Amino acid sequence: MSTSATPIAATDEEIAALRWDADGLVAAVVQEAGTGRVLMMAWMNEEALRRTLAEGRTVFWSRTRQELWRKGDTSGDRQWLRSAYYDCDGDVVLLVVDQEGRGACHTGERSCFFRAFGDGSEPGPR
Amino acid sequence: MSTSATPIAATDEEIAALRWDADGLVAAVVQEAGTGRVLMMAWMNEEALRRTLAEGRTVFWSRTRQELWRKGDTSGDRQWLRSAYYDCDGDVVLLVVDQEGRGACHTGERSCFFRAFGDGSEPGPR
Repeated sequence: MSTSATPIAATDEEIAALRWDADGLVAAVVQEAGTGRVLMMAWMNEEALRRTLAEGRTVFWSRTRQELWRKGDTSGDRQWLRSAYYDCDGDVVLLVVDQEGRGACHTGERSCFFRAFGDGSEPGPR
Repeated sequence: MSTSATPIAATDEEIAALRWDADGLVAAVVQEAGTGRVLMMAWMNEEALRRTLAEGRTVFWSRTRQELWRKGDTSGDRQWLRSAYYDCDGDVVLLVVDQEGRGACHTGERSCFFRAFGDGSEPGPR
């Protein structure tokens, strides 16, 4: 786990492959680099994505507050970008990060997906 | 990797914790059980989620076609549910599956996230 910023130099062609929705957003799935665990899902507009790639830290668009938020500025639970992907339809991005601090979830859990359907006897999340 | 169906008995309380959007949907992230790789993201209405849990195979809601689609009925690339989670906000579910066939993506790739931003020198997706 590293807390260094490593910008990713995306090409204009890659950015142009994205399909922003009616609100100008793509979904952003965040996965922990070392464990493969899915940490959270949030939303990005083009500025949030460009800042995430350029700064090497995740920046999202808050649909509730209608503003950019750079993950961890308040909590300290920053996410350091290690690699980034976009899906076949161009409407979802996958961000592989080193998660600093307690975790990704505002509840204090490491992953936002800490509640299982059923009795939880199945294998845990990755 | 197993192609057996293992239903998950979700409680009414768990289903009631979900927050469906204005279109009655939650986002569904699909992760491969054995590798931890993120395969795809799609959408579910309540019927799609209930069928997924009850049948032990993923069923999604197609926003384009406005109909349910059971993954793999046409392609053979079925997804066998191993565990399922919902996030802190209740608007995203995480489905851990055994992926049958070629993969999750309609392009023939194993994961829909087969394109990296930048030069791809970073560590690969999980």
